[in-house]
Amino acid sequence: MRLLASLLCATTALVGAAQADELRDSAKEYFAPLPSTVPALKDNRVTPEKIALGKALFFDPRISASGVFSCYSCHNLTTGGDDNMETSVGHGWQKGPRNSPTVLNAVLNEAQFWDGRAEDLKAQAKGPVQAGVEMANTPENVVVTLKSMPAYGNWFKAAFPDQADPVSFDNMAMAIEAFEATLITPAPFDAWLNGDDAALSAEQKAGLTLFIDKGCSSCHSGVNVGGHGYYPFGLIEKPGAEILPPGDKGRFAVTETADDEYVFRAAPLRNIAQTAPYFHSGKVWDLKVAVQIMAESQLGEALSDAEADQVVAFLGSLTGAVPEVALPVLPAETATTPRPTAEVR
Amino acid sequence: MRLLASLLCATTALVGAAQADELRDSAKEYFAPLPSTVPALKDNRVTPEKIALGKALFFDPRISASGVFSCYSCHNLTTGGDDNMETSVGHGWQKGPRNSPTVLNAVLNEAQFWDGRAEDLKAQAKGPVQAGVEMANTPENVVVTLKSMPAYGNWFKAAFPDQADPVSFDNMAMAIEAFEATLITPAPFDAWLNGDDAALSAEQKAGLTLFIDKGCSSCHSGVNVGGHGYYPFGLIEKPGAEILPPGDKGRFAVTETADDEYVFRAAPLRNIAQTAPYFHSGKVWDLKVAVQIMAESQLGEALSDAEADQVVAFLGSLTGAVPEVALPVLPAETATTPRPTAEVR
Repeated sequence: MRLLASLLCATTALVGAAQADELRDSAKEYFAPLPSTVPALKDNRVTPEKIALGKALFFDPRISASGVFSCYSCHNLTTGGDDNMETSVGHGWQKGPRNSPTVLNAVLNEAQFWDGRAEDLKAQAKGPVQAGVEMANTPENVVVTLKSMPAYGNWFKAAFPDQADPVSFDNMAMAIEAFEATLITPAPFDAWLNGDDAALSAEQKAGLTLFIDKGCSSCHSGVNVGGHGYYPFGLIEKPGAEILPPGDKGRFAVTETADDEYVFRAAPLRNIAQTAPYFHSGKVWDLKVAVQIMAESQLGEALSDAEADQVVAFLGSLTGAVPEVALPVLPAETATTPRPTAEVR
Repeated sequence: MRLLASLLCATTALVGAAQADELRDSAKEYFAPLPSTVPALKDNRVTPEKIALGKALFFDPRISASGVFSCYSCHNLTTGGDDNMETSVGHGWQKGPRNSPTVLNAVLNEAQFWDGRAEDLKAQAKGPVQAGVEMANTPENVVVTLKSMPAYGNWFKAAFPDQADPVSFDNMAMAIEAFEATLITPAPFDAWLNGDDAALSAEQKAGLTLFIDKGCSSCHSGVNVGGHGYYPFGLIEKPGAEILPPGDKGRFAVTETADDEYVFRAAPLRNIAQTAPYFHSGKVWDLKVAVQIMAESQLGEALSDAEADQVVAFLGSLTGAVPEVALPVLPAETATTPRPTAEVR
């Protein structure tokens, strides 16, 4: 009797292991675990000096015209790397046009912004600094600001040792990209992909199975479970105008191709449970509702309540460990530092 | 000859040591070094759990109605514990009435705010959260917000283990006070007070001598070199209306006593070189100019250029080491978390 029980247990374990392997093999066709080191950047070698400078710049509100906003304001590292509101509030209390995406793991996206208009994070970093509704600054004023504080001169020199005049807007963006490349958040899903069967619960595995079988993983794939590829929002059925406002035609503004109307980059889903509200419009706060809308609009599938719960459980396994970030200590303004202005031009 | 030189050196060293001791003895009549441990708080025992909760709350922008501002916004720990602008920008892009004071070492001030209207940091913490031009929130909405995120419930329970319903506006303020009590910045001046002769340069010692002899230390004294006692701004000669706007009568608003018109708490001077602009109006950006204005308006003294430089050099010795603060990881909103609103009521 004891022997039989042992045999049964062993068989169950083998079947369990075989199923886990099968699901993992299938998952590996779509997804990849996070790398174990800071990703290499195109034309931007990551060094400790560049990371330190980039961290200082990321937190420095004097990069904005008003002195109110830093990169951290809308990409808050305490709350999932975004800002927990529909669309960001910026200079002059103006509302930005789209929901702030998380900076966490953003280095692994194929392109940046909801419409992919920046090819990488160094291109992205220059946008909000100059946008009138965000930081409302100019590259010239940023450079004057940074050059007015001697410590920044030293830090830029250390980060770009071969350059005669390293304090530049381009180098600011390169350093910010280097810091942001360190913001990688290994999650239970990575542990499971890497072989730890117990890292996902049964419900999460069921959700992953659905995520693949229903077709979510056709667009939300790769190391960031999204973040590459462009797809029309409303492939099967257009969501309502509140969720998909007619005035924002997405990637059409970048390519001016009719096919790109209402086309957006597939959202990267790492840490999605931490980054409500959802969609480029930021109109949906409940992840389960967002999953159901996606299933209907993109796949023509009505998920049952239980199925949606399972997919949400799987998405929870993408919540990763945020690396510890100690606040930098920034230099004080000097007589030549441009004064902050709250004026809206 | 060699003997004579040795004797001379020895004599000079002795005279130097005697002078240092004399200046130190004199300084110790006015000032005290920072304590080596987190200061004890009145009616608020500091525990690791309370500090951790307070840190989370200090950084959480969901304490504000808009979700834009946290305590950290105007008390930025990367830039001297304040916000580098004349007066803070708050809810609806409104300007606050007075310059944001640094949170660093604020626990050691006798009272809080420029007019001392809050007796301690737990009383202070409740002000900006409710001020319409700052965070524009209500105690009720803050409590609903915090209760909507289960992690906060656990953290409040750990910080206030004896209470049945620990998530309260009062306890929020107590926890923030506990975290802020850790923001102590030991400076070269402390090392010098504690016996390290070389911690101050000759110019800084000359500045300290002036600071005492001219009478600055009559008001700017104690462990925070200010931060206690109330004095009329313009004791000898009123500064111009830009620096001392007639509409802001200072402590008069608290006591409604004619003697308290244009009376303010003597500013604590630790980290003053990092916290421009100066005065309650924030109208002066240059520390040397601020020193000269103070000498004229409070003491009737016209400092020479060299004297003002020496005093500024001494004030630089009050710039301390900011403790390392690692960002907390905050819980995500849930279905019951009140949504942020940018609306100005």
